[in-house]
Amino acid sequence: FLPLKQTAKESCVAKFGPLPSKWQMASPEPPCMKNTSDGKLKILQNALYSIFGEVVFDPNYKGVAPFAVQLRKNAIIIQSLINSSRIQTIGGTYEFHAGDIIDLIFNSEDQVLKNNTYWGIFLVAKPQFIA
Amino acid sequence: FLPLKQTAKESCVAKFGPLPSKWQMASPEPPCMKNTSDGKLKILQNALYSIFGEVVFDPNYKGVAPFAVQLRKNAIIIQSLINSSRIQTIGGTYEFHAGDIIDLIFNSEDQVLKNNTYWGIFLVAKPQFIA
Amino acid sequence: FLPLKQTAKESCVAKFGPLPSKWQMASPEPPCMKNTSDGKLKILQNALYSIFGEVVFDPNYKGVAPFAVQLRKNAIIIQSLINSSRIQTIGGTYEFHAGDIIDLIFNSEDQVLKNNTYWGIFLVAKPQFIA
Repeated sequence: FLPLKQTAKESCVAKFGPLPSKWQMASPEPPCMKNTSDGKLKILQNALYSIFGEVVFDPNYKGVAPFAVQLRKNAIIIQSLINSSRIQTIGGTYEFHAGDIIDLIFNSEDQVLKNNTYWGIFLVAKPQFIA
Repeated sequence: FLPLKQTAKESCVAKFGPLPSKWQMASPEPPCMKNTSDGKLKILQNALYSIFGEVVFDPNYKGVAPFAVQLRKNAIIIQSLINSSRIQTIGGTYEFHAGDIIDLIFNSEDQVLKNNTYWGIFLVAKPQFIA
Repeated sequence: FLPLKQTAKESCVAKFGPLPSKWQMASPEPPCMKNTSDGKLKILQNALYSIFGEVVFDPNYKGVAPFAVQLRKNAIIIQSLINSSRIQTIGGTYEFHAGDIIDLIFNSEDQVLKNNTYWGIFLVAKPQFIA
């Protein structure tokens, strides 16, 4: 036996990585979010969501781009990491709205160890506020 | 059908802003918290709570006060932002006790865009620990 | 009445401190974690977990060790605090795996006020991802 709301929550979880670098969903068609063809995540329902993730910097990165990771909502930075310490945490709880596009971008794709780097999102609650 | 505990959780959510700048509750009289007459939040039950929020700095702010945001518990700072990057995240999970007063204060009220700035709190769990 | 999953979640909460400095569990033998004889926490189930906590620096600390707090997974730092501001927050949501060992260490045990410093962990969700 599973109550309806609990079931809805368990199925509203999406995760990108670690390898393979693709979106994994907790249900075939989660009601609250979907991945876009270009690797981003589209929010389908107004709600409180939590973002989680670990970004692992590759100490053998030889490129010249400064290490930088950005979590964005509608292309606006809502969190950024510029420190190169080995493992870093991204995440937090946000109120997102239907249509919001969330993505996580790196200054250079090969700055991170893809077998250890992942991020994801889950629906926390859908409060109905009274004015 | 909604089990009792789940219902209690869904109703223990409070949010301040974005505009209008006032507290919104997910139930008329949430059992775990209430807003005070001076815009703060009073915790009514010992529990784990999550705080969430986005603070958007106003790039057109002309004042002289340094940009500063403080999340406080009983007037003691538990989180602070002093960076003026556009959007910043506040939040985290805390064990609060009945009687705790939580507030979010700005160095100057007009440093932030009130139509995009909000913060809130919800009850995560009420674990009964065994010694 | 409590649905099975909700019950499981409520019981998968562990907390260390504030005084007494020992692990407290929300059930006698939580299915998802256990404390080790050396004060660490061992994860027993693959799942999303949230870590929470407040670290309160002792302003009267007379030692020479720089203030430093590290949250670690399998002895690798996943979060660190080096700032000596009075109260600091640790925490975040992570995907942990069975066998992971989590601990929180201080540069010197007497750098923090043990009657106000605590940290803990709870199971958030056990999503079953579809490939």
